[in-house]
Amino acid sequence: MNIKQKDQKRTKILNLINNKQTDKQVLIKGWIRTKRDSKKFSFLEVNDGSCISNMQIIVDNTIKDASIINSLTTGSAVSITGQLVESKGGKQAKEIIAEKIEVISLAPQSYPLQKKRHSDEFLRTIAHLRPRTNKYGAVFRIRSELSFAVHKFFKERGFVYVHTPVLTGSDCEGAGEMFKVTTLDFINKKFIENCRGYDDDFFGKQANLTVSGQLSAEMFALALGDVYTFGPTFRAENSNTSRHVAEFWMVEPEMAFCGLHSNMDIAEIFIKYLINHIIENCKEDLNLFAKFVNKNLMQTLDSITSQDFLRIPYNNALDILLKTKNKFEFEVKAGHDFCSEHERYLTEKHFKKPVIIFDYPKEIKPFYMRINDGNKTVAAMDILVPGIGEIVGGSQREERLDVLEKRFDEMGINKDEYWWYIDSRRFGSVEHSGFGLGFERMLMLVTGVSNIRDVIPFPRTPKNIEF
Amino acid sequence: MNIKQKDQKRTKILNLINNKQTDKQVLIKGWIRTKRDSKKFSFLEVNDGSCISNMQIIVDNTIKDASIINSLTTGSAVSITGQLVESKGGKQAKEIIAEKIEVISLAPQSYPLQKKRHSDEFLRTIAHLRPRTNKYGAVFRIRSELSFAVHKFFKERGFVYVHTPVLTGSDCEGAGEMFKVTTLDFINKKFIENCRGYDDDFFGKQANLTVSGQLSAEMFALALGDVYTFGPTFRAENSNTSRHVAEFWMVEPEMAFCGLHSNMDIAEIFIKYLINHIIENCKEDLNLFAKFVNKNLMQTLDSITSQDFLRIPYNNALDILLKTKNKFEFEVKAGHDFCSEHERYLTEKHFKKPVIIFDYPKEIKPFYMRINDGNKTVAAMDILVPGIGEIVGGSQREERLDVLEKRFDEMGINKDEYWWYIDSRRFGSVEHSGFGLGFERMLMLVTGVSNIRDVIPFPRTPKNIEF
Repeated sequence: MNIKQKDQKRTKILNLINNKQTDKQVLIKGWIRTKRDSKKFSFLEVNDGSCISNMQIIVDNTIKDASIINSLTTGSAVSITGQLVESKGGKQAKEIIAEKIEVISLAPQSYPLQKKRHSDEFLRTIAHLRPRTNKYGAVFRIRSELSFAVHKFFKERGFVYVHTPVLTGSDCEGAGEMFKVTTLDFINKKFIENCRGYDDDFFGKQANLTVSGQLSAEMFALALGDVYTFGPTFRAENSNTSRHVAEFWMVEPEMAFCGLHSNMDIAEIFIKYLINHIIENCKEDLNLFAKFVNKNLMQTLDSITSQDFLRIPYNNALDILLKTKNKFEFEVKAGHDFCSEHERYLTEKHFKKPVIIFDYPKEIKPFYMRINDGNKTVAAMDILVPGIGEIVGGSQREERLDVLEKRFDEMGINKDEYWWYIDSRRFGSVEHSGFGLGFERMLMLVTGVSNIRDVIPFPRTPKNIEF
Repeated sequence: MNIKQKDQKRTKILNLINNKQTDKQVLIKGWIRTKRDSKKFSFLEVNDGSCISNMQIIVDNTIKDASIINSLTTGSAVSITGQLVESKGGKQAKEIIAEKIEVISLAPQSYPLQKKRHSDEFLRTIAHLRPRTNKYGAVFRIRSELSFAVHKFFKERGFVYVHTPVLTGSDCEGAGEMFKVTTLDFINKKFIENCRGYDDDFFGKQANLTVSGQLSAEMFALALGDVYTFGPTFRAENSNTSRHVAEFWMVEPEMAFCGLHSNMDIAEIFIKYLINHIIENCKEDLNLFAKFVNKNLMQTLDSITSQDFLRIPYNNALDILLKTKNKFEFEVKAGHDFCSEHERYLTEKHFKKPVIIFDYPKEIKPFYMRINDGNKTVAAMDILVPGIGEIVGGSQREERLDVLEKRFDEMGINKDEYWWYIDSRRFGSVEHSGFGLGFERMLMLVTGVSNIRDVIPFPRTPKNIEF
């Protein structure tokens, strides 16, 4: 391989498939998926990652480079020049009659992705190679398209995208256990002995990885109106489940002059928009999941986009759960948060549609949620959908200075740490609301993939930070 | 303030300005910027953050709510219903004749953003309030639009957006000092005494904050073709300059089947695209910067978009710098990296246009860059632009297994840690390239803002993690 001043431009397979023109010379570059020989011809299936479809290459055994074919193994990289033609047989619409074949590099027989089914568990151990498979290529193309849909939705509605910080001095953002960040050589006992603690540390005080951009986003909503964040968030929770990872992406809109029910409206429209965007823009990739991963996928998605979400207060949902004869592993208790199985019962079995539960007991919710009249509940809302359970959690925020300060005191939170947050209630405070949508949960919903580790490029879990 | 089942919908000021329709009743909500009284009328300037323009509200002193006006202070939040009409005088095109005025909340006289010029230094101490000013509102609206332009550019070209991990087990990604991440109670000396070190830590080994998503992105480029990352990256460098922060966002495209010169082509097109996008989509906000922040702004931007970037090898650039009579603070040395002042001399004084320098000495560049024939230089490229200096750094990556392994050995890097990276050169390795664009530097370029702290919502610098 030499570096040329100007590289000859390859055309992506996706573009060849989408373009109506045939009977012209094209150059593609990609990787061999399979090879099949007959007496006079060889057939190569080449994939370049631009789409799930391979391009079939027909090699007449009499052409100059034909002998190269013998050496080609699965996973080898090739450059192929030839005539793009309408396919005469088979399922693909187009194919290439090879004129010139160059081997870019040969993969040894030890290449792990030989043509056979691999388990998701095995593929996690080669997360650096799994995007080369049909399933994971599709997962990550859909992930990209879903990200774009997030930005498109908010742009169309005049929201400002805010990059809230990952590093935070707050140790209570109300959403979970935090990782600490340091430059101290803390593993060196000699060093730590003589260390003055945080005074010697990079930021001069405890620094953590954010669990939510909300508090920062509120500051921007109170200046710019409608804003949203979309970035990585972190939880240092030692739980090894199919729904938890240490690092994941979250979408958090925050809206000034917006109450709880408008907040629900936007969340509902948003979820439907994202699903419809993927159905319209990722047909071929989505088809793989509907066929091989979850046979009910399209039906589940349709049940979400085609009907209004049901809205009920926590107390009514509690009544239903207390009265049902359904057996739960964990007991339903008044005044407690619902477990995942309770939430899924409500959305999947009882109502058989998406459900928004609102007005939760204040004791189980964070300091920033608005206290309702009566001082028993807060203006919180969770959205539950079939197949996933909770996908959105949101609230109207407490905008009243005196009520907020009282709540900090009740909960034993140091107000001095949040002087800036409190400031925003002192100067031009207005009704405002927002929610968080777990991006990976949304991706699991639209693909039917059941383990969160399988929708993240390189997932981070307890004792696992490989790659 | 009460929560209503359905909130009456406000219209954003931006939409009122852009919409041709007038002489109709509208509802706006926002914050008082200024108030002016005459005998018969009061004039309020209200801003809602949707755009830099205020809406002028004309209050006839005989209407029912007129007495409220007396109490209104700068920063107070109001809800105003009235007739939207063509403005008869003044600079604004439209104004509202008030019919109903509601005070949402009054700001006390201690509100720091009274009508006068505030220094950037002072505004940094109230980073939670500064987006309420014209300048910072404009900065963060442009930041949002620039982010969208990044995604749009790559989507139009079929790139897949990859969320590479922030948490990494690699301690050498080749781009700078790293922060460590832990759940150990390292500040507690008793705890540390009995601690088994990383075995007791969350990930069971040292975990760091990423300095670049490149190595992960390469794995995806070798599967999906063209990919990019756009996310936060971190440097634990103790430097307090106007160009360095601990947390910033970076855009990193990575392209399979792409050599160094195609890499330069894409980077050049990308920079021009981003500038043109902002010029076309942020006219009003950009105007503030061209008028009040940098009088040469539009000229600088034009000089970048209107001509081809000049491309010269490192050695030729070095010759120019060694021969010039220009006085530098730091000496120009063969085989060393250029300093910022050298780079700015080349682009601002010598060539007076953007410059791409390529083929750097291998000693000053990281392990992953492709060794050129002769084994002296690597296929690296940096793009320098007037006003900023270096804005892009990229390279063709070393795709040859044997050369890469030799380089790891030469540089004393533990190959076992990078087994997965090396794997990608074992299985279907292909020519590939990529670059990193510092998102904040790009934002400084398009706005003319000279301190990086002033283009980030909540900047993190040594000893500073407030908010």
